Amino acid sequence: MATHAERNHLLVATFAETLELRDWEAFAALLAPEVVYEIPQTREVIRGRDRYVRFNAEYPGEWHVTPEVIVAEESNASMLFRWALDGESSLAIVFFEIDDGLIRKITDFWPEPYEPPPGREHLAERT
Amino acid sequence: MATHAERNHLLVATFAETLELRDWEAFAALLAPEVVYEIPQTREVIRGRDRYVRFNAEYPGEWHVTPEVIVAEESNASMLFRWALDGESSLAIVFFEIDDGLIRKITDFWPEPYEPPPGREHLAERT
Repeated sequence: MATHAERNHLLVATFAETLELRDWEAFAALLAPEVVYEIPQTREVIRGRDRYVRFNAEYPGEWHVTPEVIVAEESNASMLFRWALDGESSLAIVFFEIDDGLIRKITDFWPEPYEPPPGREHLAERT
Repeated sequence: MATHAERNHLLVATFAETLELRDWEAFAALLAPEVVYEIPQTREVIRGRDRYVRFNAEYPGEWHVTPEVIVAEESNASMLFRWALDGESSLAIVFFEIDDGLIRKITDFWPEPYEPPPGREHLAERT
């Protein structure tokens, strides 16, 4: 029998898969009705399953989600994923709070490229 | 007996704790000699335990690391943490690859605030 952690790992994989397939019915079935979605960088919060599904369904552009790492425990999980939008690709991160097989809270991060501060060239290469 | 996932969870907690304490000997003991540290946003790579410990020991400013979420499995782990630097605070994320009780790969993300694109005000509040 699968542990909670194993089931949550699969839940996150299915989250990514149903997003990629635009299978909004299957996607919604993973979410608690009162799910909360947050982007700390913009201070945006979306409350409720219907609004959050709509946010994704309405997201403009030709976008793709490809999981790179999924890590899950009993109540928390995270995913590092490649996000491609209109031919440009970057890495993004999402954390999940999961209870009783449903996603209750989603926290998304969209890191942008930046120039490193000076003073560490003696330690770091750049690829 | 603790599982691999449980031991890795503790390893990540100890990583944060030894950083915060500037206990460089205990910090180094968590790392494989050939550890690789990457910041995808700057394309910086630091290779090897000695350089990576030095990078942290030399990091300028009055900084603090406070874990918010740690998630660990058998070979991967992640941590969402609050990063305070000279009185300013933000969230940052780190992913780990762990083998045989030692950290082999560290990937860090430093997301910055940004203004949300228009077109989702009907779904998102701002806090």
